Order: sequence, then C-alpha cells, then structure tokens
Amino acid sequence: MSSSPVTVNGRSYRLPQAPTVVVCVDGCEPDYIALAVAGGHMPYLQGVLARGTALVADCVIPSFTNPNNLSIVTGAPPSVHGICGNYLYDPATNSEVMMNDPKWLRAPTILAALADAGANVAVVTAKDKLRRLLGHKMRGICFSSEKSAEATVEDNGIDGVLQLVGMPVPDVYSAELSEFIFAAGLKLLHARRPDMMYLSTTDYIQHKHAPGDPVANAFYAMLDGYLAQMDAAGAVIALTADHGMNAKFKLDASPNVIYLQDLLDEWLGAARARVILPITDPYVVHHGALGSFATIYLPADGATGMAERLRALPGIELVLPREEAAARFELPADRIGDLVVVSERNVVLGSASTRHDLSQLELPLRSHGGVSEQRVPLIVNRPIAGLDLARRWRNFDAFDLALNHAQ
Amino acid sequence: MSSSPVTVNGRSYRLPQAPTVVVCVDGCEPDYIALAVAGGHMPYLQGVLARGTALVADCVIPSFTNPNNLSIVTGAPPSVHGICGNYLYDPATNSEVMMNDPKWLRAPTILAALADAGANVAVVTAKDKLRRLLGHKMRGICFSSEKSAEATVEDNGIDGVLQLVGMPVPDVYSAELSEFIFAAGLKLLHARRPDMMYLSTTDYIQHKHAPGDPVANAFYAMLDGYLAQMDAAGAVIALTADHGMNAKFKLDASPNVIYLQDLLDEWLGAARARVILPITDPYVVHHGALGSFATIYLPADGATGMAERLRALPGIELVLPREEAAARFELPADRIGDLVVVSERNVVLGSASTRHDLSQLELPLRSHGGVSEQRVPLIVNRPIAGLDLARRWRNFDAFDLALNHAQ
Repeated sequence: MSSSPVTVNGRSYRLPQAPTVVVCVDGCEPDYIALAVAGGHMPYLQGVLARGTALVADCVIPSFTNPNNLSIVTGAPPSVHGICGNYLYDPATNSEVMMNDPKWLRAPTILAALADAGANVAVVTAKDKLRRLLGHKMRGICFSSEKSAEATVEDNGIDGVLQLVGMPVPDVYSAELSEFIFAAGLKLLHARRPDMMYLSTTDYIQHKHAPGDPVANAFYAMLDGYLAQMDAAGAVIALTADHGMNAKFKLDASPNVIYLQDLLDEWLGAARARVILPITDPYVVHHGALGSFATIYLPADGATGMAERLRALPGIELVLPREEAAARFELPADRIGDLVVVSERNVVLGSASTRHDLSQLELPLRSHGGVSEQRVPLIVNRPIAGLDLARRWRNFDAFDLALNHAQ
Repeated sequence: MSSSPVTVNGRSYRLPQAPTVVVCVDGCEPDYIALAVAGGHMPYLQGVLARGTALVADCVIPSFTNPNNLSIVTGAPPSVHGICGNYLYDPATNSEVMMNDPKWLRAPTILAALADAGANVAVVTAKDKLRRLLGHKMRGICFSSEKSAEATVEDNGIDGVLQLVGMPVPDVYSAELSEFIFAAGLKLLHARRPDMMYLSTTDYIQHKHAPGDPVANAFYAMLDGYLAQMDAAGAVIALTADHGMNAKFKLDASPNVIYLQDLLDEWLGAARARVILPITDPYVVHHGALGSFATIYLPADGATGMAERLRALPGIELVLPREEAAARFELPADRIGDLVVVSERNVVLGSASTRHDLSQLELPLRSHGGVSEQRVPLIVNRPIAGLDLARRWRNFDAFDLALNHAQ
C-alpha cells in the first residue's frame, strides 16, 4: 500500500493506518442516538461521546439517501458528484428514470481511490440500488444485504457471504436488513482485516419509529453492540447519517401531503408541468414516495407566477428557481427542474394523489427530504484536538475526519 | 343575559347559546394528539377530528404560557394585551420582576366582558401565577388547582372546591394538577352550568414526555375522557394550546444550551448587557428556565455588532432589533430589550451557566419559546362551514370560532 495521500475531488486523504470504518446510519435524526443513550441502550457510544469526537453536521439537500451516500463517499456535494436524487427526469430521453446507474456519477469515490492506492476496501450496504453507485470502479468487496446470497467474487469481490455472516438473507423491509450489514462488517473485519470499510444501512426502522421508541432503541442497541466489537478489534470508526427524519402527519395522524401535480394541473392544465419526487424508488412501502423535496419542470409558456403561488401555500418552506437552488444546495443545475420546492418539517410533497399508494403505511408517516432533516450526527471514536466547533460540519467530512484527523 | 354581542379588543363575540368550553392544553405540540389518536387513546377526539373542525394554528411568540393564555382570552396579540413573558426587566424600577400582576395587563379579557354581559363564567387553571391574570376584573368563578383548597367565594367566586371535585390538591409537579382542572370543569358544568368556561392546564407532562410516549398517551386519554363527558353534557368545545414542545438536547442527551449572558460578559465586560429569559418563573424544575427565546438589554455604548455576532452562532435562528421583533411578533416594544434572540428547534438559550440549576432535570430537556414551537392544534367539536383553510389561524381565534361560528 502506498504511503502518500490520495487526492479525490480536490481533497486529500491519508491512507488508513488502522482498520477504518465509516458508518452511514440511514435516517439517523440525532435524537435517536440521544434518547437511546439517555435510556442506557448505547453504553459503548455513550463512552465515545464523552471521550471521542461528537459533532452535529449538515447533510446535503435533498436530504435523501443516494445524494448523501454519494456525498459521503466522494467527500463532495451533488454539484460535484451529480447524484441529486434516487429518481430524475432525463430531458435527453424525455423520460423519468432511476438514478442508480453509475452513468449518472460524475466524480470518483474516495473508496475507489484508496483501493487504487493499494488499500483493501469493503463496502456493505442494505439495498442493491445503492451498491452499484458506491462500488463504481472500486476494486474490493462490495455487496448488499438484499442480494447477499448472490454475491460472487467476480461481481462483488466475495462469495459465500451468508456462510461468513451466519444469517439468512433478511427481508428488504426489516431491521435485520441493517443488522446484516454490521454482522457482515464485523466478520469481514476479523476475517479479512480490510483497511477501509463503508457500511450504509436502510431507514426502515426510522421511517416507522420515533426517537426513544422501544423499537428504535432496540435498533440502536444492536448498532451499539457491533460498534463496540469493531472498536475492540482496533477500528477507527466514524459514524454519520444520510439524513434526519421527522413526523409528517396531520392531527388525525393521516399523511400531511401537498399534492403538487394536482395543483399544477389545476392551475396550468393537465400534465403541462411535471413534478419529480426524487425520493421515488422501488421500495416505497414505508413512505409512499412522500418526502419534503420536489422539483418541477414548467411548460415554456404561461407558467409565470407559479413560484409565488406555491410559496403562498401553508406548509411550503421554500420555492427556489433552478439556479438559486443549485447554488444554495450545491446541486447539479442540469438535473433539477425549473423550480425546487421544500416543505416544512411536518409536511410532505406528493405528485398526483392518485399516484401514491398509502394503503401500506401501517404507522403515521415519518419521512425526510427537506431542510428540516438536515442535521445529522458526525461522531468519531477517537478524540480530535483543535476542531473548529463553530464551522459548519458536513456529513461528507466523515472520511476526512476518520483518515486525516483520527489516526 | 344580554343577547347582543360584546366587543373586546376590536373583535365582536356572540354570547354563548350552549355551555361553551375553551380548553388550552399547555405545551400541546400537535403530534401529541396525532399519536394518541393513532394509538387509539383518544376515541372521542378521533371522532371530533372527522366530524368537527380541525385546524393547526400559530401561537404567539415567545411561545410561552402567559403571553399565549392572555392572547387566547383577549383574542389579541401581546402588542395589545401587554403580557410578553412570565418575567421581564422593568426599566422604571431597574429590577427584574414576575409579570403575574394584573397591573401589566393592558387589555380587557373576553371572559370579563361576557361576565359583564350577564354570562356565568368559570375559569380553572393549573397554577396560581396565571389565575390572577386570567381572572382580572372578571365576575364569576376563577381558581387554580394549585390553590384549590384555599378558594373562597370572595376571592374565587366559589368555595368547597375539593369537596366538589372529589380529588385531593395535586402536587404542583404532576399530571394530576391538570387532571384536576378537567375534573373540576366537568363537575362545574353539571353543578353550575356555566355559560362559558376556560380551562388551562400545565405542561409538566409535555416537558418530560415526547408525543407517542406511553405517559403522554395516558395524559391525552385522560383528557379525551373528560372532553367526551363535557360534549355529552351539551358543551361546545374549542381546544387549542399555548405553545408546542420540542426536544432540546445534544447527542449525549445533555441540554443543548447557548449561555447568552456568559457570551455577552465575555464580549462586553461583566454585567454590561442584561439577558432576560421570559420563561423564568418560580416553577422551573422541569425546564431549568431554559427556553428558545431571550431578550437582551445592551449598554448604551460599545454594543455595536452584537446582533451580527449572535446571529453567527450555530443554533441561533433569529436575532432581531427591538422594533423589528415587536412588528414581526406583535410584541409591546417597551417591554422587550434591544435585541430579541430565538434559537433553533433543538437549542435553548440560557443567561449565565451558573444561574441555571439543571440538577433536577430527570429526563432529557424538552422545552419551547421559539418559532419552532409555534404550531398548535385548534379544534372545535362542531363542524364550521366555509372556513378559509389557507389563512393563518391563531390560537387566539379560539373564542371567535367557539362563540361566533360553532353555535
């Protein structure tokens, strides 16, 4: 392994001296940790908060999974890496497509650069939708819990994952889908001693259970146990999140939705504007594709005044034209619509009401996507001297802290 | 009883035709109701939300108890009634004083006006600090749970309260302090049939327990039972809140405090600026006098740039000069300092760290005072046709809805 730092997207990273683990806990609103700690469910992390490094950072907007995971592994905002949602409108093909394909990725990852410099790298994530992006051009181990049974040396750098982990393939909607990641990470740490691991979970539990809820506390107790074992194995650990999570329901506990496509159809005529919800993905049972961020493509004519009209709706926090949104949220201007709309903390944005299947929401809706879900933990299990506590920390500083400051 | 409406602070109110009850549930963040309803703990209110009137309204800022209770019973903001906190700095006497004395009240109450017009009026509140303000110049019944044993016909319009209610005097820090209010209200409704009742609780439970927590759900189940019985007795009921409530702690669950007096002492010299926390009252065990709103009196010289410096602190949401704060939040400009400071959702403002006793905080801090606690329920147990759902409703529209629209 080379000993000189690698430079990725304008930032320099030292190669790991100790096994280094960056953990992205999907939907980890900081209060999940605080209330689990207060309840005595995270004895290991309680110690880390006292003796290590505990920051609260801002994630990138939209506060969704893919943009933030890619920011964390590139150390850069979406304006650099290009992934600004799970889903986008592609004007080139006039179609709405998933953004899972690495063709959308515009920047190299730190993971790939470390592997190229000779580090042994392993990535484990929950769903296969994210695996292809995280593992792009990366030599090493990269698989998802979801498709762990199908992992091959050729495609994933590893096979026999179920035997290694000793767990069956978890259901895609389960806490075990995330537990499998930590169990796999711990086994890999012992069996393969990777220099660098990236472990990224799914927010199934966080979409259903509020901070302090017994089910949430059990999830964080599970996490705490694995983190403690990785620490005991000598790992430098940085923990952050892709986004927070908030309650998004009305007084009667039904989802608090503004259906933007219905409104625009009424104001402009049917299907003249196109509402894109970048939270959309194939796994929408737990949130019904409802989040607090939307982007709108307006017709070339007759769409004046839409921003003002949307801004006047109760529950709307921000309506920004493309260039302003791109500047403020560091987004790729060519991949967002004419308007970016962000709703308030307890409100989500829908397209047309008929396009959302809410019948499978078993519990009051919790979701994310907005500025209200921007705060996330940024924790390192080692003390770091001289940190500027007044600066704005980002979740995509996790690799910098872990590699350049904690070892 | 006269049949012509009364006019109070520029608004007109019809006299009650049916027994009318306005309930202020202290610290009732809307999610308390939503999650209690979702959990099946409020079967009566669940029906009301479906068949009655369910709005979410804005309270007044600072989102504290006294300013909002006075707004509700005057139908007006603090710029009209003058009560802008529990506590203020009185430049006339160069002293910091409680604002409980009715001498601070600048406007008549709807309650007093209805009583003057011949209505039988009853007010029950939790703590005696609020009773004197609510009952100012009001003929009728007015007592607190806290001092219920001492109620006399001369001072409170009633005696023998404990016998009437059939409960002992509750502890001032208890859920029973609020339950006593509803128990008393129900007994009064049957025994005296008041035309108008105002019932105002304390937020002891809400400071300690998040929405959906079993203890919170039990509180709302208790409330639901009493509301159902009042409805069955023929009451028109309007329910609102003085303010919401949010978690205010760090990752390690300790209070997330910016100590403003310490900062200003460091920047300007000791005691040159004066930080006033209007949440301060004699009952601070459950919040340590920490809320998300402060006002600052600056020295006449050498205090330039303080607003900018405070604004740059992580966790500060707003810093407004006096006149701007008075205009934006409808506050009496002569009763606030040179600056008004509002902190973010999960942050509270302290004066000097040595002045706050946090040793009695048994659970992670939950508090209020900021814009983040402005949303409150506004529910009426009767349908109201033709309501403008796009307008900004206020908690101090409760009497208007109950008296002018629901009967």
